[in-house]
Amino acid sequence: MTIEMHPQRWGDPAAAEALPDSVRGLVDAFVGTRDTPAATDVSLPTSGLAEDLLVSLRGTVGDDAVVTDDAARRLRTRGKSTPDLLRARTGDLTDAPDVVVRPSSHEDVVAVLSWAVQHHVAVVPFGGGTCVTGGLAARRDGYAGLISLDLIRLDRLLSVDTVSMTAVLQPGMRGPAAEAALAEHGLTLGHFPQSFEFASVGGFAATRSSGQSSAGFGRFDDMVVGLRVATPIGELVTGSSPANAAGPDLRQVVMGSEGTLGVITEVTVRVRRLAAEKVYEAWTFPTFAEGAEAMRRLAQDRLLPTVIRLSDEAETMANLASQKDIGGEGVTGCLMIVGHEGASVAASRAQVTAILESLGGTNLGEERGQAWAAGRFHAPYLRDSMLDVGVLVETLETATFWSNRERLYQSVKDALEGSLGEGTLVLCHISHVYETGCSLYFTVATKQAEEPLAQWLAAKAAASDAMIEVGATITHHHAVGTDHKPWLAREIGPVGVAMLRGLKDAVDPTGVLNPGVLIP
Amino acid sequence: MTIEMHPQRWGDPAAAEALPDSVRGLVDAFVGTRDTPAATDVSLPTSGLAEDLLVSLRGTVGDDAVVTDDAARRLRTRGKSTPDLLRARTGDLTDAPDVVVRPSSHEDVVAVLSWAVQHHVAVVPFGGGTCVTGGLAARRDGYAGLISLDLIRLDRLLSVDTVSMTAVLQPGMRGPAAEAALAEHGLTLGHFPQSFEFASVGGFAATRSSGQSSAGFGRFDDMVVGLRVATPIGELVTGSSPANAAGPDLRQVVMGSEGTLGVITEVTVRVRRLAAEKVYEAWTFPTFAEGAEAMRRLAQDRLLPTVIRLSDEAETMANLASQKDIGGEGVTGCLMIVGHEGASVAASRAQVTAILESLGGTNLGEERGQAWAAGRFHAPYLRDSMLDVGVLVETLETATFWSNRERLYQSVKDALEGSLGEGTLVLCHISHVYETGCSLYFTVATKQAEEPLAQWLAAKAAASDAMIEVGATITHHHAVGTDHKPWLAREIGPVGVAMLRGLKDAVDPTGVLNPGVLIP
Repeated sequence: MTIEMHPQRWGDPAAAEALPDSVRGLVDAFVGTRDTPAATDVSLPTSGLAEDLLVSLRGTVGDDAVVTDDAARRLRTRGKSTPDLLRARTGDLTDAPDVVVRPSSHEDVVAVLSWAVQHHVAVVPFGGGTCVTGGLAARRDGYAGLISLDLIRLDRLLSVDTVSMTAVLQPGMRGPAAEAALAEHGLTLGHFPQSFEFASVGGFAATRSSGQSSAGFGRFDDMVVGLRVATPIGELVTGSSPANAAGPDLRQVVMGSEGTLGVITEVTVRVRRLAAEKVYEAWTFPTFAEGAEAMRRLAQDRLLPTVIRLSDEAETMANLASQKDIGGEGVTGCLMIVGHEGASVAASRAQVTAILESLGGTNLGEERGQAWAAGRFHAPYLRDSMLDVGVLVETLETATFWSNRERLYQSVKDALEGSLGEGTLVLCHISHVYETGCSLYFTVATKQAEEPLAQWLAAKAAASDAMIEVGATITHHHAVGTDHKPWLAREIGPVGVAMLRGLKDAVDPTGVLNPGVLIP
Repeated sequence: MTIEMHPQRWGDPAAAEALPDSVRGLVDAFVGTRDTPAATDVSLPTSGLAEDLLVSLRGTVGDDAVVTDDAARRLRTRGKSTPDLLRARTGDLTDAPDVVVRPSSHEDVVAVLSWAVQHHVAVVPFGGGTCVTGGLAARRDGYAGLISLDLIRLDRLLSVDTVSMTAVLQPGMRGPAAEAALAEHGLTLGHFPQSFEFASVGGFAATRSSGQSSAGFGRFDDMVVGLRVATPIGELVTGSSPANAAGPDLRQVVMGSEGTLGVITEVTVRVRRLAAEKVYEAWTFPTFAEGAEAMRRLAQDRLLPTVIRLSDEAETMANLASQKDIGGEGVTGCLMIVGHEGASVAASRAQVTAILESLGGTNLGEERGQAWAAGRFHAPYLRDSMLDVGVLVETLETATFWSNRERLYQSVKDALEGSLGEGTLVLCHISHVYETGCSLYFTVATKQAEEPLAQWLAAKAAASDAMIEVGATITHHHAVGTDHKPWLAREIGPVGVAMLRGLKDAVDPTGVLNPGVLIP
C-alpha cells in the first residue's frame, strides 16, 4: 500500500512530530516562535470539467481510472514547496485538478493524451507530488478543464538485464519500491534524493533529480540510458545505445522537460550491484572554504567517495542543535559527511582519508556519519514543525564552477539576509560535486511576517537574481516548474527559449501538456 | 602553419606512402590488387554565386575573409569518407562551395549568417574537413549559392581556469594545436580520435566525437561544459554550471547538431593535468567474446584504464601483417591494447592487470602497446594506398548494450560479407566501452567493382539496415551527415524527427544552415 502524503505537510502523516525542544529553544532565541496552526475543514472548488467530458473520459480509460473525490483532488493540488504549504495551510486550493486520472499502461496514457487534445483539456503528469518549484500548478485558463495524470499504477519493474546492467522501470514507482524491486536481483539504482521516500522514477527523469549519493552514482540524468515517452503526436523511444553520435541527444531533451513535451512511460536505467560495505563518517574542516577545497581536490583527482557533503559554519551549528546529541561533544568548524559504498571500501577509503587529512580535515568517526545516514530523509518533516510555530523555512539551491563558488555563496546569502532582515538564519551545504564545480544548497529560517507568502517570494526573487547575476544556474536539481521560469529565461536567453518553444510546438502543438510550466 | 589535406586523400600530402610490401602481399592473396590511380588535372565547376552577392559578402566580412580560388574551394569539397575519396579521385567536384569564407571572430560569424539569411545563401560550417558521413555535402538547390564557412582563423585558446579546470577554445583549433596550447599550462584535453591531427574542436562538439582515450577521459560530449553558438536568430550561450536541472540540456542539443542549428564559436571544456606517466601494453585473449567480457568487467567495476581496445580475430591477423614485425613473434587470438595514464599508474595498473589475467588475458608487454600508440593516427593513410591498388577500404561503426553485442557483431559482419561477396575482409574492434555497452568499429576491404561507389553504398546500406534491425545505433561517433539520415529517421522515429525539425525551424527559420544535413 502506497502511503499518501498529508495534503498540508510533507510526507507520511503518521511520521509528523512536534518540534524537538532543543530546536524550539534555538529557534526561539534566534527567530522567535508562535503557534500557527493550519486551517482545517478546507473545501475544494467544484470540479470544472463538464459532465459530458467526464463521461467521455470514463469511456476512454475506464471508470476505475477516473477519480473525482475531494481527497484525491486535494492531494494532487500543487507540490511541497513552502509556498505550496503556506497556500495549503490557509485553505487555498484554487489549483486543484478537476479530475484525477490513473492510467495503467502506456496505451492508457496515449488514450488520455488523445482525449485531452480532442477536448483541449490540460494534462498535468503527477508522480510523487514532491515538486518544490510549482511544476504541478499548470495554467488552466483557456482549457476545458485540467486533469492530474497520476502515474501511481505504472509501478512495476518491467525487466532486468544483468549483462548490460540495465533495468526498465515504470514511471510511477517511488524510490523505495524501485530499490526494493531491484534489490531482489541484488541490484541498486543508487538514487537517494531527500524526496526519495515519496518521489517517483518518472519524476526523477522529468526533473533531472540528483541524489545524496551523486558523487558515487551520478545524477539521475547520468543513470538514464533510455526513455519511452507518450506525446500528443505519437510515441518517442530513445536510447539505442549507451552513447552515440546520432544527432542531438533526445534523452537530454526529455529529461528536464517536466511533462511539457510528453509523458514518460518507461525509464531504462543503469543499475549496479548492491554494495556489500557501507560506511559513513563525519569529518570537520576549520572553514567552509577549506572543506570545499578538499572536495574539489577529490573530484579533480577522481577519487570521490559515494557520498560527500559539507555544511558551512552556520549549518554545522544548526545541525548540532537539531540532532539528538551524539557523544556529547560539540563540532567546531564545518561538518563534512563522507560515505563509502562498494564491494570493498578499504582501499578507496584510505585514499580519501589521506587527502582529507592532508587538507586540514579531522576525522570525527562513524557515529555522526551513521546518524546522518539514518536521518537523511527526515529534514522536510522539520519544516512543517517550524511552520506550526510561525517560522518560515524553505530551501533553494544552485550550482557553479569552483572558481565562482565563493562569490555565489556570498551573493545568495547576502540577498536572502538583505531581503528577510534580522533574525534570519541562512544555512548552506555543498552536496553535489563535479570536476569543474559544485552545487550550493541553502536552508533559510526566519520569523513569518504578516504575509509569509509575499515575504518569501521577495526573498526568493532576490536570491534568484543573485544566482543569475553571478552567472550560476537557477537550479541544480529542483527543476524549473513555474517558480523559476523568469530566471530560466535569463539563464538560457532568448535563443534557448526559442529552442524550447520549437520543441513544444513540434510535439504538443495544441499545448495541452502542463501548460505554463517550464517554458518561458 | 596549418597543413592542408590533399584534396583526394587523407591527411598531410607529404606523409602519403605506397602500400608496404607485406600488406600488398596479404591483400593480393585475399582480395587481389591492380593499380588504380586518381584522376589528375581536375577542374572545378565555376562558382555559382552572383557577382553582386560576392561584392556584398566582401563588404560584410572584408576582402581577406572571402576566398574564391580553386585550390581553397576544392579542399573544402566534401569530407574524407571512402565515397568522398572515390568521387574526388574520379574528378567529381560537383559539391564544391561557391566561396570559402574565413571569419576571424564570433561577430564575423554573426555577420555572415545575417548576410546568408538576407540573400538565402546556404552556409556549410567547416572545421578540419575530416567528416566521413557526408556532413559537408549540403543541399544547394533553391539557394542563391553555397559558402563554406571555414573556421580556421578562430584558432585560439581564449582562457584557462585552473581552479575549475576548464578552458575556453575557439572552434577552428585542430587537435594538436589545442593540446599544445593547453600543454603550456600543464593541461590536456585528452581527446584523441583517429582524425586528431586534422579535426577541429568545433567539429568535435558538433559531431559528438569520441577519442581513443574515451575510457579515461570520456567522450567529447562529456568534456564540454559550455558552448557559445551563433544562430540566425541570435546568440546562444549554454553552460551556466557543470550540471543543472534548468530544463532540457541545450548543450546536448547543440552537440550532434552538425552545423544545422548554429555555428559553434566557443567551446568551454573540462581539462585535466598532463599525465606524468603513460604506459601502453598489449594483451591477447583467446576469443573476441572473452576479451569483450573482460572489458565489460572493467567497465562495470569502474576500473577502466585510459585506453582500452580489442581487435577481433580477423583484425588481429590483419594488424600483424600491416605492422612492422615486432619481436618476430605472432599473436594468436585477439589483441587488446591497454593504456594507463596518470600522475602515478602503478596501483590502477595492478588492479586492471589482475582482472585481465583472471579472465583469460595474456600480457604481451609494452612493446606492441607503444607501437600502437606511435601509429595510432596512421590508418587513414593506408586506406589511400589501398585505393591506389584497386582495393576498396572503408570503416563504419555502431554501439549497443552488452547483451546485444554478439548479435550486432554477427549481423553487421554478415550484412557486409553478404553484400560484398567473396574476397572481402571484415575486421572489427571495440574501442569505446561503457558500464552498459560498447562500440563496434568495422573495417572492410574488398576488391573494387566496376562501380566502386555503388558497390560500397549497397554494402553500407546493408550494414546500416542490420544495425537498426537489431536495435543498435547508426553511429557511435561518426555522426549523421547526409549518409546516415535515412537510418537516423528509423532510429529516432517520427517524433524524434519532429523534435529536430521543431528545433531547426525555431533557430534557422529560413533553413540556410547546412541544408539537407542531419535532419531527415
